[in-house]
Amino acid sequence: MQDTVSFDEKRNRLVLIDQTRLPGELKMLSLHTIEEMEAAIRTLQVRGAPAIGVAAAIGLAVLARELNADENYEANLLAYADRLRATRPTAVNLAWALERMLAGPHDPESLALQAMAIWEDDIETCRRIGEHGSALLRDGDHVLTHCNAGRLAAVRYGTALVPIYVAAEQGKGIHVFADETRPLLQGARLTAYELAEAGIPVTLLCDNMAASLLQSGKINMIFVGADRIARNGDAANKTGSLGLSILARHYGVPFYVCAPFSTVDFHCAEGMDIPIEQRAPEEVTQAWYARRMAPAGVEVYNPAFDVIPYGNITAFVTENGIVAPQNLPVP
Amino acid sequence: MQDTVSFDEKRNRLVLIDQTRLPGELKMLSLHTIEEMEAAIRTLQVRGAPAIGVAAAIGLAVLARELNADENYEANLLAYADRLRATRPTAVNLAWALERMLAGPHDPESLALQAMAIWEDDIETCRRIGEHGSALLRDGDHVLTHCNAGRLAAVRYGTALVPIYVAAEQGKGIHVFADETRPLLQGARLTAYELAEAGIPVTLLCDNMAASLLQSGKINMIFVGADRIARNGDAANKTGSLGLSILARHYGVPFYVCAPFSTVDFHCAEGMDIPIEQRAPEEVTQAWYARRMAPAGVEVYNPAFDVIPYGNITAFVTENGIVAPQNLPVP
Repeated sequence: MQDTVSFDEKRNRLVLIDQTRLPGELKMLSLHTIEEMEAAIRTLQVRGAPAIGVAAAIGLAVLARELNADENYEANLLAYADRLRATRPTAVNLAWALERMLAGPHDPESLALQAMAIWEDDIETCRRIGEHGSALLRDGDHVLTHCNAGRLAAVRYGTALVPIYVAAEQGKGIHVFADETRPLLQGARLTAYELAEAGIPVTLLCDNMAASLLQSGKINMIFVGADRIARNGDAANKTGSLGLSILARHYGVPFYVCAPFSTVDFHCAEGMDIPIEQRAPEEVTQAWYARRMAPAGVEVYNPAFDVIPYGNITAFVTENGIVAPQNLPVP
Repeated sequence: MQDTVSFDEKRNRLVLIDQTRLPGELKMLSLHTIEEMEAAIRTLQVRGAPAIGVAAAIGLAVLARELNADENYEANLLAYADRLRATRPTAVNLAWALERMLAGPHDPESLALQAMAIWEDDIETCRRIGEHGSALLRDGDHVLTHCNAGRLAAVRYGTALVPIYVAAEQGKGIHVFADETRPLLQGARLTAYELAEAGIPVTLLCDNMAASLLQSGKINMIFVGADRIARNGDAANKTGSLGLSILARHYGVPFYVCAPFSTVDFHCAEGMDIPIEQRAPEEVTQAWYARRMAPAGVEVYNPAFDVIPYGNITAFVTENGIVAPQNLPVP
């Protein structure tokens, strides 16, 4: 499979898998304007916390090369970075990647090198998350996941699914149960797709069926990703993660959050400080459907994320190993 | 609004609102063959535990009149009753209504009278559930519900929503939050529709957003219906009810199950004894969608119901008043 996000340096393009077309069609996007990049992030053509961070970094490098090196170069570059940062509020990776881009020299070639370094680090970091996480898995385990924190959420390996890919390389048979993840069905469209492509057995369920599945005793552990982790270990992730963490605790099923350390936001003391994106009602009432599935004009509650309290998290699976929430704030 | 289920005695037809067409179109069905009736129940053109019980009763009365009064009348009638009973396994109302139909004389006119009595009792019973349940509600309350246990789930009033209709008649302003209820979206399609028709404010949410909504402290209580209640108070209801009851307990939000006493199955000692219907994978992967939303051939877990443990139920709201689970088995 192609990388989810990459840098076509020759043509100076940000190259993305268009995730709104999956699972029906594997279509690549090739972007070079700020408007295209903003739209791609906002409409979730690229989504997943690590992937949007890398996309913003490569995007800024592409934009820097496109800019005329005139007296407004610096102002224009910073304005572009602000626009990319503002596309989505919850995942810290956008801000983190742009901060790393702007920490060094701002000339186009330095930015291109930095973007490629961020891209390579994502691959390496995710791979290491997989190696640590795979140690938790035994042959025959059943793992439940929510949303998509797989290869489609990062450059190549993902966060919550990479332990399963590495375990499969080690010859362990793992069966994944994937919450479909309303409203945008990232579990049904993306997680089920990428696992099936990789030959990993997967069973799809509606989000509200996780309770009876956990009650059945079939699930050995839960792996999810994270969009932003506060200093105390509270972790924002796709809406539904909070409820799943409460159910996991109720039924005594270990709940792991798989994320690189760059997801920790040391400016957030606790989950309450994490901004939660509210998205359009139409995602719930109309998106994807052949016909309207709710009365016209109905009011809708549509937070894109919720916050898993650190007390519900068994451990974080990071590139540096498995870390209990109370041991998280490694400066 | 028209009754959800009724008996056109002049034309000898079972008349139903086709619930698969809502909210787009209010279309009536007029049925007189066993095949039509089986299909209407299986495909959820009529659904909701009280409504399918009444539909089966009226259906049997219609079929009795259609039968030739020859020597096979009794055998044919019992075969029709068996076929109606077998359409869906979880809701006890089907079996309960058919048992009541067959407890008296089996001639067509006696069956027609019995069917009308069952129909009238449903209206009266639901109304009394509403009167008892409305006493729990104060002006300004926010109520969360799951699936549809409103007028579309019974003849005229419903179970979980009727306390809200009665409270509205009493001048109380109640705001309802409705889980959309995957996979078949009864909350989005039916609950949001009937509440909007009745002028009751309603906010729609995806099932997985209930956790953050309850966490916010905005919800005063939860009302759901039930398809079958065991002697110990365990209650089967639409998939997602179990998880919601765990979340309600976690956040200290009262959780009420609104149902007539006919929903109690004294043959079931506990929830484990209640048969849970498994439905087709296509309900999750394709139903309603403009295009396939999951990879072809993906395995699907699709139980239609789950069981709320009695310990998570604050009380049952019945036609005879509000009853704690431990006080339920009134013989």
